[in-house]
Amino acid sequence: MLRVKDFEMIGTRPCLTVLRGTGHIWLRSYSSRPLVQGEPNGPSIKTEIPGPNSKKLLKQMNEINLSSSVLLFADYNKSIGNYLRDADGNTLLDIYTQISSLPLGYNHPDLVKAIQSPKNLSHLVNRPALGVMPDEEWPDRVTKSLLKVAPKGLKQVYTMMCGSCSNENAIKTAFIWYQNKLRGSNKKHTTQELDSCMINQPPGTPKLSVLSFHGAFHGRTLGCLTLTHSKAIHKLDIPAFDWPIADFPNYKYPLNEFQKENAAEDKRCLAKVEELFHEYKSKGNPVAALIIEPIQAEGGDNFASVEFFQKLRKLASDNGVAFICDEVQTGACPTGKFWAHEHWNLSDPPDLVTFSKKMLLGGFYYKDELRPEMPYRIFNTWMGDPSKLVLLEEVIKVIERDQLIENVNKTGKALISGLKELEKQHPQVLSKTRGLGTFAAIDVATPELRDRLVAKMRAKGVITGGCGTYGIRFRPALICQESHIKIALDILSSVLKEL
Amino acid sequence: MLRVKDFEMIGTRPCLTVLRGTGHIWLRSYSSRPLVQGEPNGPSIKTEIPGPNSKKLLKQMNEINLSSSVLLFADYNKSIGNYLRDADGNTLLDIYTQISSLPLGYNHPDLVKAIQSPKNLSHLVNRPALGVMPDEEWPDRVTKSLLKVAPKGLKQVYTMMCGSCSNENAIKTAFIWYQNKLRGSNKKHTTQELDSCMINQPPGTPKLSVLSFHGAFHGRTLGCLTLTHSKAIHKLDIPAFDWPIADFPNYKYPLNEFQKENAAEDKRCLAKVEELFHEYKSKGNPVAALIIEPIQAEGGDNFASVEFFQKLRKLASDNGVAFICDEVQTGACPTGKFWAHEHWNLSDPPDLVTFSKKMLLGGFYYKDELRPEMPYRIFNTWMGDPSKLVLLEEVIKVIERDQLIENVNKTGKALISGLKELEKQHPQVLSKTRGLGTFAAIDVATPELRDRLVAKMRAKGVITGGCGTYGIRFRPALICQESHIKIALDILSSVLKEL
Repeated sequence: MLRVKDFEMIGTRPCLTVLRGTGHIWLRSYSSRPLVQGEPNGPSIKTEIPGPNSKKLLKQMNEINLSSSVLLFADYNKSIGNYLRDADGNTLLDIYTQISSLPLGYNHPDLVKAIQSPKNLSHLVNRPALGVMPDEEWPDRVTKSLLKVAPKGLKQVYTMMCGSCSNENAIKTAFIWYQNKLRGSNKKHTTQELDSCMINQPPGTPKLSVLSFHGAFHGRTLGCLTLTHSKAIHKLDIPAFDWPIADFPNYKYPLNEFQKENAAEDKRCLAKVEELFHEYKSKGNPVAALIIEPIQAEGGDNFASVEFFQKLRKLASDNGVAFICDEVQTGACPTGKFWAHEHWNLSDPPDLVTFSKKMLLGGFYYKDELRPEMPYRIFNTWMGDPSKLVLLEEVIKVIERDQLIENVNKTGKALISGLKELEKQHPQVLSKTRGLGTFAAIDVATPELRDRLVAKMRAKGVITGGCGTYGIRFRPALICQESHIKIALDILSSVLKEL
Repeated sequence: MLRVKDFEMIGTRPCLTVLRGTGHIWLRSYSSRPLVQGEPNGPSIKTEIPGPNSKKLLKQMNEINLSSSVLLFADYNKSIGNYLRDADGNTLLDIYTQISSLPLGYNHPDLVKAIQSPKNLSHLVNRPALGVMPDEEWPDRVTKSLLKVAPKGLKQVYTMMCGSCSNENAIKTAFIWYQNKLRGSNKKHTTQELDSCMINQPPGTPKLSVLSFHGAFHGRTLGCLTLTHSKAIHKLDIPAFDWPIADFPNYKYPLNEFQKENAAEDKRCLAKVEELFHEYKSKGNPVAALIIEPIQAEGGDNFASVEFFQKLRKLASDNGVAFICDEVQTGACPTGKFWAHEHWNLSDPPDLVTFSKKMLLGGFYYKDELRPEMPYRIFNTWMGDPSKLVLLEEVIKVIERDQLIENVNKTGKALISGLKELEKQHPQVLSKTRGLGTFAAIDVATPELRDRLVAKMRAKGVITGGCGTYGIRFRPALICQESHIKIALDILSSVLKEL
């Protein structure tokens, strides 16, 4: 049976009433020790955004490549913690953090120290081919960082460069595993396989597919892009594989008022997945893996129930399909657990978990049985980047030392409560507050209004981002505290009043 | 008419005779100013390779992922210039440079200085989403580095992360360009296109192909892997697109003895390309782009004539096909010009030129007419990495200041001459010496013997790599001098005598 989701229970209205009802509690959070020293007290806006300097730089940049996606130019030297300084001297509170990719905000003192430490110098200057000649410290460093935070049940990891690269290699690992299952443990590759794959023909190059979900975003290289279905502009004109696409649950909100309907939606979506497994098997293009985000981010911050994920995981196992959990955006704590799929309490973990963004380097964890049987199958020149591990090591230390998971949960509670309160105040404009930890979103009545709200917030010094057709997404750094959220919500509130 | 290729003319036998005939000339090159201070005088081997420490680390690493491709663990702190120190205290002369990806060897003082410079600190700590909020210095920095060394005729550049990512985005750029040509300049995307692409269906997701060559290597993500045809182990079990594959010229050596045959080979290969253009057009899967390496590296250091490339370029233009030159391994000077395709003297430059490896970050240059018409079409979270540009900026300065292109040509001459001399001395074992600059290879009679030679050289302190079925490839850093080549060739010679 579908329970009311954790992600709606996190910020409860009574709690918010208390927070809003008394100055004291907010004062307490204001006065709570800041996680990064030296931050300004709030945004400070001197020009329109982009300001004249940014506009001048944009003109210059636009001659190098089409740069109309650039919102502003930043002065990262002068940015600190949750605050970004731009090229015109404006200071903005950043609740979007470079498309959700900054774990500790700007110029975190521990990261600065790690980069300046002589013991790390050689990792920054000398980039090895990690699959051939890693540094003697590499196995220890990977063990103490990436393996230390590995999802339960996964003890192997490959490092990569970015999210797309991680997903591409995760699905490759699944294809190899799938074909090796068919071969059986003792069967070697046949000469026919070895020859035919060189010209992209079966049996060496098999027809295999990966199931993805409508609304998903898994990257933009050609394999990943086939799995991505969030925005047309990403996909137009680019060839794709014939791979199955299932429905991601589309719930009615508020969730606790539509439990029956949403449980039926789960059931419908799971049946569709099973149907596609059969359809693609019978047409000779069997599904080797499915890939899913714990929260569809780019696609609109779409949540699904714990039960949906539990049943989907079982469905994959029952059909011999590898379950790939794409934690590129959800990984590294923003949902209030290190990995978002920990919220599902799976008895059998995902077969592969991919990461990037806040992890600062890409890669994927995988189960022992997914391990390729031969070298050079999952391989490239660099296989990740030790200079990024220098930063990740510190990030993991700071997460522990500063109890940032607890902070995310506390901050997330304030964020979601505040959004719900604003939703209550502006029911014609706002709907569907949703979130886990600080990974939160709210829908706006029309895409145009959403874009205006995001732009107006930026003009007043708060950076957020759009997602899907109607969503505003909040992606603060792990060091974002209740005091910062108070500022962001106050500005959102003032913008709503001006509409 | 086919001329004798530059790449065979570089090291002539008379020159070598002089070099070998007198100690003086070698002494002169020994005594010539070293390009990096503090290098040892030569390799120094204390243990077998891998030694006991490397073996212990390999065992540890192998629990993290399948690591049987790892040859040794390195101590990068103690590596310098052309010399790599391993975890067992062995010092090896590195003529392979992390799969051809180190422009200036290890711990080059200018790179060390750049990484330690306070002005670069913020680029190392704060990684922006370059498509949204680049640093205010970014346009200037790109102009003074990447655009300064841009191939003639190409004034636009996108930065990326690695070679695969660069090639994936280059072919995407070509697909977009191709479809926009069909649309005409004023045609907007239709609703039908916008809707159908979301489910990977035409017309939004068109059937389009990219032509590649047998023996090519363009990376390992699914789009790139379809274009890669160098080794079965890279390709087995991974689905691919139905895209055409043409023959890369397979010449008879020595080239000046087989001019007529090799000219006929060029003609045959070009006819095949044209045939495939027509075949794929008539089967509704037209060729939007072709991609080619100036020298097929991973596939066996296969060279083709200047005439072949000139005619191929024209063939692409005549058929409305984008010409993508993959300079991931050849770019940044190893062939004795900054870009290998400069050797072709094209009147019309390639439409796109991709890079990575020695350039330290990925990306691609492209002609103005290939520029996408809308933002977010070529886009990802990071779009490259400013921390790598910090290094590339220095690399470009050092290439100029230390006249490293001249050095590559001088060193390459010694390398190719020496290989030819050894080929003459061991005609049963060695054949097909070939190279441009220091980008050189020689074939060994059997794959087993090749592998033994590479292993024995490593055991004596020289790192080289295999390529294709028979090749040993030499990929020294740009700071490799004649004195280093002398050592490498002496060790190769001694290994050959022990066979």
